Amino acid sequence: MQIDLEQPILAKNDALAEENRVLFAEKHVFVLNILASPGSGKTSTILATIEALRDEFNIAVIEGDIASSVDSEKIKAQGIAAVQINTGGACHLESNMIRKALDVLDLDALDLILLENVGNLVCPTDFDLGENSKVMILSVPEGDDKPLKYPGIFQVAEAVILNKVDTMPVFNFNEEAFTDAVRQLNPQAPIFRMAATTGEGVEEWANWLAEKIRAIQ
Amino acid sequence: MQIDLEQPILAKNDALAEENRVLFAEKHVFVLNILASPGSGKTSTILATIEALRDEFNIAVIEGDIASSVDSEKIKAQGIAAVQINTGGACHLESNMIRKALDVLDLDALDLILLENVGNLVCPTDFDLGENSKVMILSVPEGDDKPLKYPGIFQVAEAVILNKVDTMPVFNFNEEAFTDAVRQLNPQAPIFRMAATTGEGVEEWANWLAEKIRAIQ
Repeated sequence: MQIDLEQPILAKNDALAEENRVLFAEKHVFVLNILASPGSGKTSTILATIEALRDEFNIAVIEGDIASSVDSEKIKAQGIAAVQINTGGACHLESNMIRKALDVLDLDALDLILLENVGNLVCPTDFDLGENSKVMILSVPEGDDKPLKYPGIFQVAEAVILNKVDTMPVFNFNEEAFTDAVRQLNPQAPIFRMAATTGEGVEEWANWLAEKIRAIQ
Repeated sequence: MQIDLEQPILAKNDALAEENRVLFAEKHVFVLNILASPGSGKTSTILATIEALRDEFNIAVIEGDIASSVDSEKIKAQGIAAVQINTGGACHLESNMIRKALDVLDLDALDLILLENVGNLVCPTDFDLGENSKVMILSVPEGDDKPLKYPGIFQVAEAVILNKVDTMPVFNFNEEAFTDAVRQLNPQAPIFRMAATTGEGVEEWANWLAEKIRAIQ
């Protein structure tokens, strides 16, 4: 037995997202919206990306969390500007939150803003923040069946990072099944195999992102 | 810089949850609402729980997913009744969905219904389904800082399962910090250390649940 229920897409924030997009374009700032589950390694990926790109680009980070500022503190410890947004319960960032965070960042001095969305494979999918690109991270321990269960997020992503590949021997992760399922949903998106904490695969990912940033400068 | 935003709790489904609760009580069926991230091992935990309790109790499962029926198929393969709910985008189960699923289950013949909520540490927290108890699962690969970032779900849980403890050597998981953080949010909840796929710790968890079920029979 299967029950299907419909829900209208909540897209009321699109007008403000468009304003953000115009502003980012004017300032030649590339904005990357990073979507993933809790614990998939979003912050580690951001730290590795900063390390790889900070010599060429000026970077800032906007951290979205239900509560706490542990992530933005980790970023600031690297000498990078970080704004913490606590959504107070909401399971995704919205474009008005981004707009408020922009008030405290110097867009003229920036090339790249990394948005760490709230840890969630569902809610952030439909919320346009005015970003240039969405990427999603899946970590090996989460399992290879996630594209089947959360197709929307795999469809909106311009690139997919498969993180924690160093733990593949520990988990029963079928990489071929995963890749096939992603391809079904999103034939174009590159899949970057990565272990953000060890540095494995970071260079290939960072090169892809660097090209995107250069293209709008 | 920190920005705090409020969001009203969406509790419109509470009246129907109350009807569900009355029905469950009349039929002496214990209903467990299982909350966790994608990939934390909800389905494995359900399979291990079925294995531990099926000799004593009649069990059915209601599976909530955005899409797909992979989980309910795994349950049915064990000879257990399973109803798949596809929420079509919604990041949590609601009490009207449960009500529809009940139409196809024989409550008179059941002692226990396991509700696998949509994989999400945020949305399901505030949605009462009429269940007797909520439990939440955190898996070791997700990291020890999750109680700080997702406090709400740790507060509403009557018990916390720490799953995939067999992978602790691979991850930099500080169990003491985790336990302290859970205790801050929820001093009473037992924390069950478990590895659902190997069976480690399942007996202690199943004994706790069995007592709850017997108490309402």
